[in-house]
Amino acid sequence: MVTNDSERPVEPLVGQSAEGALGTASQDVVWNHDHVLDLDDFLYEEIESVISLAGKMREVLDRRIARAPILRGFTVINLFFEPSTRTRASFELAGKVLGADVISVSANTSSVVKGESLIDTVKTLSAMTADVIVMRHEMSGAPYLASRHTRASVINAGDGSHAHPTQALLDIYTLKQRLGDLKDKKIVMVGDISHSRVARSGMWGFSAMGANVVLCGPPTLLPSGFAVSDRPEHARTALPDVDIETDIDVAIKDADVVMALRLQKERQQGGLLPSLHEYSRLYQVTAERLSKAKNNHILMHPGPKNEGIEIGGDVASGSNSTIEEQVTNGVAVRMALLYLIAQRNQRGN
Amino acid sequence: MVTNDSERPVEPLVGQSAEGALGTASQDVVWNHDHVLDLDDFLYEEIESVISLAGKMREVLDRRIARAPILRGFTVINLFFEPSTRTRASFELAGKVLGADVISVSANTSSVVKGESLIDTVKTLSAMTADVIVMRHEMSGAPYLASRHTRASVINAGDGSHAHPTQALLDIYTLKQRLGDLKDKKIVMVGDISHSRVARSGMWGFSAMGANVVLCGPPTLLPSGFAVSDRPEHARTALPDVDIETDIDVAIKDADVVMALRLQKERQQGGLLPSLHEYSRLYQVTAERLSKAKNNHILMHPGPKNEGIEIGGDVASGSNSTIEEQVTNGVAVRMALLYLIAQRNQRGN
Amino acid sequence: MVTNDSERPVEPLVGQSAEGALGTASQDVVWNHDHVLDLDDFLYEEIESVISLAGKMREVLDRRIARAPILRGFTVINLFFEPSTRTRASFELAGKVLGADVISVSANTSSVVKGESLIDTVKTLSAMTADVIVMRHEMSGAPYLASRHTRASVINAGDGSHAHPTQALLDIYTLKQRLGDLKDKKIVMVGDISHSRVARSGMWGFSAMGANVVLCGPPTLLPSGFAVSDRPEHARTALPDVDIETDIDVAIKDADVVMALRLQKERQQGGLLPSLHEYSRLYQVTAERLSKAKNNHILMHPGPKNEGIEIGGDVASGSNSTIEEQVTNGVAVRMALLYLIAQRNQRGN
Repeated sequence: MVTNDSERPVEPLVGQSAEGALGTASQDVVWNHDHVLDLDDFLYEEIESVISLAGKMREVLDRRIARAPILRGFTVINLFFEPSTRTRASFELAGKVLGADVISVSANTSSVVKGESLIDTVKTLSAMTADVIVMRHEMSGAPYLASRHTRASVINAGDGSHAHPTQALLDIYTLKQRLGDLKDKKIVMVGDISHSRVARSGMWGFSAMGANVVLCGPPTLLPSGFAVSDRPEHARTALPDVDIETDIDVAIKDADVVMALRLQKERQQGGLLPSLHEYSRLYQVTAERLSKAKNNHILMHPGPKNEGIEIGGDVASGSNSTIEEQVTNGVAVRMALLYLIAQRNQRGN
Repeated sequence: MVTNDSERPVEPLVGQSAEGALGTASQDVVWNHDHVLDLDDFLYEEIESVISLAGKMREVLDRRIARAPILRGFTVINLFFEPSTRTRASFELAGKVLGADVISVSANTSSVVKGESLIDTVKTLSAMTADVIVMRHEMSGAPYLASRHTRASVINAGDGSHAHPTQALLDIYTLKQRLGDLKDKKIVMVGDISHSRVARSGMWGFSAMGANVVLCGPPTLLPSGFAVSDRPEHARTALPDVDIETDIDVAIKDADVVMALRLQKERQQGGLLPSLHEYSRLYQVTAERLSKAKNNHILMHPGPKNEGIEIGGDVASGSNSTIEEQVTNGVAVRMALLYLIAQRNQRGN
Repeated sequence: MVTNDSERPVEPLVGQSAEGALGTASQDVVWNHDHVLDLDDFLYEEIESVISLAGKMREVLDRRIARAPILRGFTVINLFFEPSTRTRASFELAGKVLGADVISVSANTSSVVKGESLIDTVKTLSAMTADVIVMRHEMSGAPYLASRHTRASVINAGDGSHAHPTQALLDIYTLKQRLGDLKDKKIVMVGDISHSRVARSGMWGFSAMGANVVLCGPPTLLPSGFAVSDRPEHARTALPDVDIETDIDVAIKDADVVMALRLQKERQQGGLLPSLHEYSRLYQVTAERLSKAKNNHILMHPGPKNEGIEIGGDVASGSNSTIEEQVTNGVAVRMALLYLIAQRNQRGN
């Protein structure tokens, strides 16, 4: 019996073969995270490392056979407490493209029904030798709690209205592909800012890359702590340096990037919106309004979109829209994150 | 660094290795479909190509190790808006036997809950580099709509009461295994014809193979556009040339094949059925009734079956029944379709 | 064309490579089961075989790349009619670590919604060439019924309040790792004995290994057929030789092992419990009560646990607790069972 034979059918997790599989060596990677919870503690260099690696992952996705099985033997568990098509499938595909095994546990089929606590669930999944737990939860902060009780790495796939860091990273990657550099670019996010985890992670990420972030929406849907157009001193530590503008036409003027946020229709019941019709009239991102942005502006949406409410159907599928690119790039960015975590864990953490 | 190394762990999608894996070259394949939506536009030669290839796939399934990973790197997404055990699992297994990655998205865990439109969902999934979207939807025509908005190939796994082409193909394959040829064979489908996607795709497929198709059921459950025993001229274009018979004993007489269709128990509420008991008395496929069919008749059912309603329990598990063969053959036929689509896409479409 | 090439990308199911992958030959295995339904018909030697093999599987799990793909080409179907996180994920991971394909079918997405009968479902899944059906069902006995209608092997993953044999096996494995031998060890199970499939399989398994099993709980939650402290003769055949004790302090005294069982909170509505508070006061496994057990006692819980009800939070995460080990060992035991079944089927059954 030859011991070397014992793992033969399993390719190396990462290592020299990764260079081959990714078509290049990944040098000068800066990465010091066990978990990906939000971007507020990400260095510029760390974001650059993710983006650079995502570029190589995107090349893998564009191959005829879109596979680079450098994470064989790596276990990713998708733990989703909220319904999701795109993010769950994106992580599942990201894992599978790299040869990892991906197991999905969704709240409605899980023993959460039996009242199992979040901590108990996460401890259990990591005891099953999960390497990464990708987690979506309706409660802000849940992935932080989880990360303190597991040996696995936790990736936040959206927690309440708090954070959605992989969305922000895929947006940054998409913008860098188009613009080269985000420095001093005007990025306007329009919609229900105060309940949007996409907006919150976006403002941290875009700011870290040197962009000028403008938040635009009706006063009732702007984060508390912001006054209109001037933010009190005490709130400065809690949010990056961004501008606020309730008039969409002023906000969009000369914008490099306009991102329409999904409007949760339930918001209307909460009394924060007079009506969907009124919202659309005042804040829908339309062709006419985009004519005030820069000529080569980019139009983004995190999806799923309500066409005719927060975004016009014509511009959503127009030539300035990067909505489908964002989806493809999302797979690439998630591949990059799984790889960075696997490589860090392999080095002995 | 050797570029050739980069994809080493991934087997070719299709190509020369496929010949080896399938035990033979697949010559003279006629196949001109980007999508599989219904059989009404399938040529006889195309159906023959699927059936012939399904025979090779069935040989793979009968091996001790039932795997031929010729579709490594191929991504299949199961998008099911209606509950399904057998069809979803059958496609998942078909993909996995061929080495493809299969991701399942079901309606109750998907962001369809959030109101995401069908088109948006399909665009998103294809932007994630899905090669095939296998789709079941409660609305007739939904897969057609989907196919016009995606780069992926769409396979209809059942849409409303419209079509279920993979079921018809597996039925044809099962019958050809038993009968050799369907030409001039009498195939009787009994039950709720007007709401049955199985019947609708079956009539197109069986007719294309030269069989004589007889539809049998209570007048309220026959398709409108059919009068009893004579069909008006204007309906000819919408349906293949089939016969109608409301008397089951007349219909079954000298039949080569009898297919009992599942009765949706909900149909009773709609006022189309007096009672389940009355239905069973008049239209249940029983041993006594089958005694009027040919001696070596074949009894089919697409499953899941209501024993004691549309079919007698004794005949369902009797020697003329092909119900379990149909299930196994369903995996083989779906393997064949995935292979044909992959090969077409590889040729540059 | 070379025939030998045809299966090249698929590793052998089991065989000489298994020795390499597992790091040793598996000699003297005693195993005579087509199905794993309960432990009441398991020989001591069969349990020892599972445990010994689970030890090798645990070594695979502890590798940096926790994979030994010796079951490539093997198909496991998870058929869960009750919600479950841990057991379903554990079987899925067990299969994937060994390179098997695992397909999950859960009741709320399955055609069980359409009224498909259990037998029909199981026949269908085995006709799809499933090798193993892992089944959880709310009805006691359902896996037995299933096993009589399928060519696949059925593993009971919990049926009603009847049996949960893989849980008992993982508990035995965990105890043997800690204690070496279970002979004459005092194992106390505390809680809702009469509704617990964990307790029921545990008593068979622990008794077979020579342990002294004590069942402890309120009289209303002890199995009928037991009188307090003496069991009538006629019940002897239905249960192994165990002791009953309603006083938890007497039960725990000098115990080697204490297992707290999950209390189903719904039990209160049934009138079998005065209140959760009263239950906790009388039967919660606490540090104080455990001080009467042996010094090096082991504390177990099958999970998911209600901390503060049947178990104290401090002891649950204390140094005597094996709760997380049980989870990891559960994957190892399930790997062992899948392997034993595959090897038996390969020998021609």
